[in-house]
Amino acid sequence: MALFAPSRSVTEILKLAERPDVISLAGGLPDPTVFDMERVRESMDRVLKDEGRAALNYGPNPGFSKLREWIAERMATKENVSLSPENILVASGGVEGLNLTAMSILDKGDTVLVEAPTYMMALHIFRGYEARIVALPMDEEGLETDGLEASLFELKKKGVTPKLLYLNPSFQNPSGRTMSLTRRRQSVELCRRYNVTILEDHAYAELVYDGERLPSLKSLDPENVVFVHTFSKIFGPGVRLGWVAADAELIERLGLCKLGTDQCSNTLAQRLVYDYGRHGFIDDQVAASIELYRNKRDAMEAAMSTHLPEGTSWGHAGGGFFLWVHLKDGADSDTLLRRTIEDYKMAFVAGSTFFANGDGGNFLRLSFSFVAQDQIDEGIQRLSRAIAAG
Amino acid sequence: MALFAPSRSVTEILKLAERPDVISLAGGLPDPTVFDMERVRESMDRVLKDEGRAALNYGPNPGFSKLREWIAERMATKENVSLSPENILVASGGVEGLNLTAMSILDKGDTVLVEAPTYMMALHIFRGYEARIVALPMDEEGLETDGLEASLFELKKKGVTPKLLYLNPSFQNPSGRTMSLTRRRQSVELCRRYNVTILEDHAYAELVYDGERLPSLKSLDPENVVFVHTFSKIFGPGVRLGWVAADAELIERLGLCKLGTDQCSNTLAQRLVYDYGRHGFIDDQVAASIELYRNKRDAMEAAMSTHLPEGTSWGHAGGGFFLWVHLKDGADSDTLLRRTIEDYKMAFVAGSTFFANGDGGNFLRLSFSFVAQDQIDEGIQRLSRAIAAG
Repeated sequence: MALFAPSRSVTEILKLAERPDVISLAGGLPDPTVFDMERVRESMDRVLKDEGRAALNYGPNPGFSKLREWIAERMATKENVSLSPENILVASGGVEGLNLTAMSILDKGDTVLVEAPTYMMALHIFRGYEARIVALPMDEEGLETDGLEASLFELKKKGVTPKLLYLNPSFQNPSGRTMSLTRRRQSVELCRRYNVTILEDHAYAELVYDGERLPSLKSLDPENVVFVHTFSKIFGPGVRLGWVAADAELIERLGLCKLGTDQCSNTLAQRLVYDYGRHGFIDDQVAASIELYRNKRDAMEAAMSTHLPEGTSWGHAGGGFFLWVHLKDGADSDTLLRRTIEDYKMAFVAGSTFFANGDGGNFLRLSFSFVAQDQIDEGIQRLSRAIAAG
Repeated sequence: MALFAPSRSVTEILKLAERPDVISLAGGLPDPTVFDMERVRESMDRVLKDEGRAALNYGPNPGFSKLREWIAERMATKENVSLSPENILVASGGVEGLNLTAMSILDKGDTVLVEAPTYMMALHIFRGYEARIVALPMDEEGLETDGLEASLFELKKKGVTPKLLYLNPSFQNPSGRTMSLTRRRQSVELCRRYNVTILEDHAYAELVYDGERLPSLKSLDPENVVFVHTFSKIFGPGVRLGWVAADAELIERLGLCKLGTDQCSNTLAQRLVYDYGRHGFIDDQVAASIELYRNKRDAMEAAMSTHLPEGTSWGHAGGGFFLWVHLKDGADSDTLLRRTIEDYKMAFVAGSTFFANGDGGNFLRLSFSFVAQDQIDEGIQRLSRAIAAG
């Protein structure tokens, strides 16, 4: 169980961070005020009244048919990708989408390319299948495509074709960074040339606070990109629903894998989300979420400018839930975290959580999504004092 | 993907069996009339009104605390096992409970003991972790403990300690058989002596149509039995909820594995099931289900006595969803199935689905749970004609 040691330290810290006197900027939870409870109840009433008995029984393994159709149509509108329902598998959250994809594609020893930093649960999943993880450098424009090309070239010389390149191109967890359009085009082109499937994690991409949305990688190369999205940030994580968009043959394999994970996704929740979505309520909720989170992001960036000590820097987050703080070289954010929780009653996630090789000691992730607006400034003040005392 | 070939043939056949002119005795779905929709709506209204925002957000990874407490208390009452909430993990259905247990215990090449026949999804899961599956003979009293002892002895001589013995002791899927009290005691004693963990699948154990409930294996040896149960047959499968009861250390490991499958179980559904359960509605539903399914079982056994041709035999099902039919030697139920669907518009599940080595051609599984009561006799008549024509 050595594989799970990093996760264990994460869960331990999250437990500490839940103490009521701690201001936590650690977890990436939605702000519960974005949920439109009246509309949720309206949809749920309709589902239970009109189709309650079907909603409580097993449903089709790849997902509720009407929801798959609705997702395919929505992706045509929002993502400019033409798909049929056979290209959609409804998963029990985005993480299950990543897990099923890894389960059906990876064998022990296969190489997976990731960004450094990258989403910790993706690392957890790839490690679980004993993949060899190769981390690639990124900067403010996202994955460095020169580095990607060099790595693909070096691996090819050794006879290695990576099975997957995992990317979270829009408002990445943890860095908040967004891959530029040029880099998107280059990544897609390189992966096609080197025959590497891209696994695109779209979790935060709809939460755009500044400027235009960039095209998804899926829209740039529909055939070579497996696309994973979640209802967690556009509806609510409590229903544990997301989806995978891929070619029909892979979707069928994911469904077979899913027979052995949870058989099918929650039928009641699928019908709820379908009803809520087809009434336009998801799009309304996304619009309201953008307003809410933009304000929080602004408040946190302002507090950081005011309070964070010299030698600390951070990137602007144009969307999503996260800000990524660069401490001075030699800092150790794991030690800082324990001290900050105990002595300053404030929590974040240490940078090392997001690096395949345990690097990242001079980084930390802040989330502005869940914290109450009126606690943001105080939270950043506490962090600043902790850093300054270090 | 060769691993999944048997499952693929199962899904193909289930698709055929869904044609509206086919009477399907294949799937193990609950009868939708057992769902008490008025009470479900009452509980759901309460959850959405009182705690809707929490229900739509992420919840604790091992499960909603009040539900874990309620499960632990219910197990004390129903199963005579003393547990604390730390011994309970809420999973996304019983299958996820099996999968997480296998994920956290099995390494490639480990030996797992199963009954022949056994639950197909358990085989699917153990194969997924590349376990060596050793199938043990069973009879009308369940697993043959002489065979278990001989197998443990032989394996020990070769230096092999199986990691798990998977048992479904009450109204087994697929055979409907129940392990006698003597065999239960012997199995528990042998596994303790040979240091083999028992994985007990309790899915159908509450649906008792005749006589007394036998004690669970968990109650006979709380320390050495990992117990998996599901809400699918006592509430509804659409919510995809079940649980694992085990020592706190294993529960913690299952939780870490679950971070990479779906992070946490559906929060909304957990709160619904908790509210429904604590009002006593689950126990009422189980009582009503027993009445309903006993009638269906009686109708199917009567139809079988009337119609099934000479040379065919079957066991009595004292509970659960299934009847297990023994065809004459040399029969091939896979071929019979295709012919029965196409020419007689009736479906069942072929016996080979439930055997690790593809045996079982002269068996088939019938489910009486989902089919409408007034179609049972006609369904068995169609099957009888198909067998007789064979």
